Amino acid sequence: MSLWVSMFSHHFEMKFLEQDFIYLKFKCPFLFLSLTICAADLTIERNTACKAKPDPSTLVFGKHFSDHMLTITWSEKEGWEAPQIKPFQNLSLHPASSALHYSIELFEGMKAFRGADNHIRLFRPMLNMERMHRSADRSCLPLFDKAELLECIRKLVEVDQEWVPYSQNASLYIRPTFIGTEPSLGVSRAGKALIFVIVGPVGPYFATGSFNPVSLLADPSFVRAWKGGVGAFKMGGNYGPTIAVQNEAVKRGCQQVLWLYGDDEEITEVGTMNLFIYWTNEKGDKELITPPLDGIILPGVTRQSLLDLARSWNEFKVTERNMGMKELLGALDSGRVLEVFGAGTACVVCPVGSLLYRGKTYQIPTMQNGPDLAKRFHKELTDIQVGLFTSAFTHNIQQL
Amino acid sequence: MSLWVSMFSHHFEMKFLEQDFIYLKFKCPFLFLSLTICAADLTIERNTACKAKPDPSTLVFGKHFSDHMLTITWSEKEGWEAPQIKPFQNLSLHPASSALHYSIELFEGMKAFRGADNHIRLFRPMLNMERMHRSADRSCLPLFDKAELLECIRKLVEVDQEWVPYSQNASLYIRPTFIGTEPSLGVSRAGKALIFVIVGPVGPYFATGSFNPVSLLADPSFVRAWKGGVGAFKMGGNYGPTIAVQNEAVKRGCQQVLWLYGDDEEITEVGTMNLFIYWTNEKGDKELITPPLDGIILPGVTRQSLLDLARSWNEFKVTERNMGMKELLGALDSGRVLEVFGAGTACVVCPVGSLLYRGKTYQIPTMQNGPDLAKRFHKELTDIQVGLFTSAFTHNIQQL
Repeated sequence: MSLWVSMFSHHFEMKFLEQDFIYLKFKCPFLFLSLTICAADLTIERNTACKAKPDPSTLVFGKHFSDHMLTITWSEKEGWEAPQIKPFQNLSLHPASSALHYSIELFEGMKAFRGADNHIRLFRPMLNMERMHRSADRSCLPLFDKAELLECIRKLVEVDQEWVPYSQNASLYIRPTFIGTEPSLGVSRAGKALIFVIVGPVGPYFATGSFNPVSLLADPSFVRAWKGGVGAFKMGGNYGPTIAVQNEAVKRGCQQVLWLYGDDEEITEVGTMNLFIYWTNEKGDKELITPPLDGIILPGVTRQSLLDLARSWNEFKVTERNMGMKELLGALDSGRVLEVFGAGTACVVCPVGSLLYRGKTYQIPTMQNGPDLAKRFHKELTDIQVGLFTSAFTHNIQQL
Repeated sequence: MSLWVSMFSHHFEMKFLEQDFIYLKFKCPFLFLSLTICAADLTIERNTACKAKPDPSTLVFGKHFSDHMLTITWSEKEGWEAPQIKPFQNLSLHPASSALHYSIELFEGMKAFRGADNHIRLFRPMLNMERMHRSADRSCLPLFDKAELLECIRKLVEVDQEWVPYSQNASLYIRPTFIGTEPSLGVSRAGKALIFVIVGPVGPYFATGSFNPVSLLADPSFVRAWKGGVGAFKMGGNYGPTIAVQNEAVKRGCQQVLWLYGDDEEITEVGTMNLFIYWTNEKGDKELITPPLDGIILPGVTRQSLLDLARSWNEFKVTERNMGMKELLGALDSGRVLEVFGAGTACVVCPVGSLLYRGKTYQIPTMQNGPDLAKRFHKELTDIQVGLFTSAFTHNIQQL
């Protein structure tokens, strides 16, 4: 035993984490198929031609990228290869790659914030890793160890930490992406795949700026997702088809699309954000409503965070349930709707000012009502993100 | 005028196509935005390291690619650049390319056949160009001149003509692909795009070989497409989500998925092929039925060709209408179903032998009935494709 341990001890660490058990922590063996991503194997090639950073006050969403990127390749034969941080560069892809033909692709959106204390924090990153894992499973892409991938992403943010804006109105957007790179044209499980993560400084998602009310087009002839489909996963195919509808919304004088579903024209989501309605219900109680996770809406991290915050305050009713257009318009008509707002990583919290439905514009008194609740959520979230108080939601990148 | 004509005459041709009108046919001007693809500008860089061609009898679907590829780049600023035929190679893509994140991507599937006369023919290629154009419009990708793109594809097949198998059981599969290459992360219309076309010799699509009956899983809990969505377009996002369901079908002993839709469990399509039912209807008449183009099924070129052939024969009723599972199972039960088969470019015509529905396997007597009709379609199509008789369906690549 002792000889065996000394021969192989450079391959593992021995740990005593629990009474009566010995844990052997193995480094991913080079000679075997790597069944998961191994952050300890990560290599870093520094960029020797770093770019100038843009002025944080001029940032738009998703146009600037940092000096480095993370790539992790997988194949059926070799498993997960060692993660690489390397200079930001184009991907070299076989033209038959399944991501380019059959949309075997998924992504995540997360942010890193520079705090008032100059520490850099991620916001609930494990929720993104969990959703990414679910999307990978639904896409028949290989599964991975969420904590290991997060550790690689943390390292990338650390390498590019000067790209996290020195500003409270901007942040570093993190885009983990997972694509099938199988170089053949049969519609089947990808035998090769690539995770890549790019990051870049961002300002407000909407051109209207931060915390300005948006107008939504609610037209039941457009359907984003459906029961039995993949609307609950962050797969690329849920986004491309929305662009033509978004353009139609702009043509009709709106900024975004409120997607409806089914015969009751249920309110679902806004594509880049989940929707919240704060109202006085039929019983005269203040209540916050958002549609439930019934398979056709994206389980947003910001959505979950607003629900968690509101439930922790315990000041008003918090309900996940469907609401049809008829019910919403009835409540609007009787003056019971206080605030309507969206919530998402890109936009944080975004008030809704009006709704165009069947040719008629309905004003929503969100801004007239403060909007007290939307502003409170926005302040609470941004205070947490910049580390104004300690919260289980944030992960200081030095502490992960 | 005459000076002006002589100065600029290398830019255009003067034509008299109609009385009282002069047509000036311009070559795409280099100095201006190219509003469409211009086949006359195509450049060819020959591959100096051509690969050995595989034995046609060992071909599987979509694994081999020829020596060249066609690429045509577009940008909002420059319009369409000159098409290029060049050695088959990896694509160099910005990691934020919208195809990789939001599935702004679409494709086509066509074939070139080597005839008994050694001529090479494409099968109804303009139908593919038209569908590709519709998919591009729905994807907010730039529109293009269909005839110009087809001419570039014809040229590619000509350059790689030795890759068209010398075999009647194999063909050259042509995969036009159109992707958004916008290098930014906002979900919006791509300002950059790329058409690329790859080709390769293929054998039968299904591993079971050509004209062997397949078994289908019909489970209403899986939904491929829906009204108000994009199921009628050949966009990548319609394919990726089907792989997990396809795997589920295999797990349950089936080869493919028959996608159902709505409360009546309407029969829609098989993902890689459209579905046809040949039966004796309630009135005792022979009838060929296929679901209508109501927005949730792909308008297949082979589907259209079978309808066109059957209508030209005028021997039995030909109907495009919905049929629910209840109606199909009732007809099966009363012995009125003669043949069920799929039709698609990849598989041509493929008999269906059984259906697994709600845990029960229903045998379909397709093979017991010849299958006379499916075989007749298959023979007629392949005879046309290899040029056994003149047909408006085929385009000899020397004549396009």
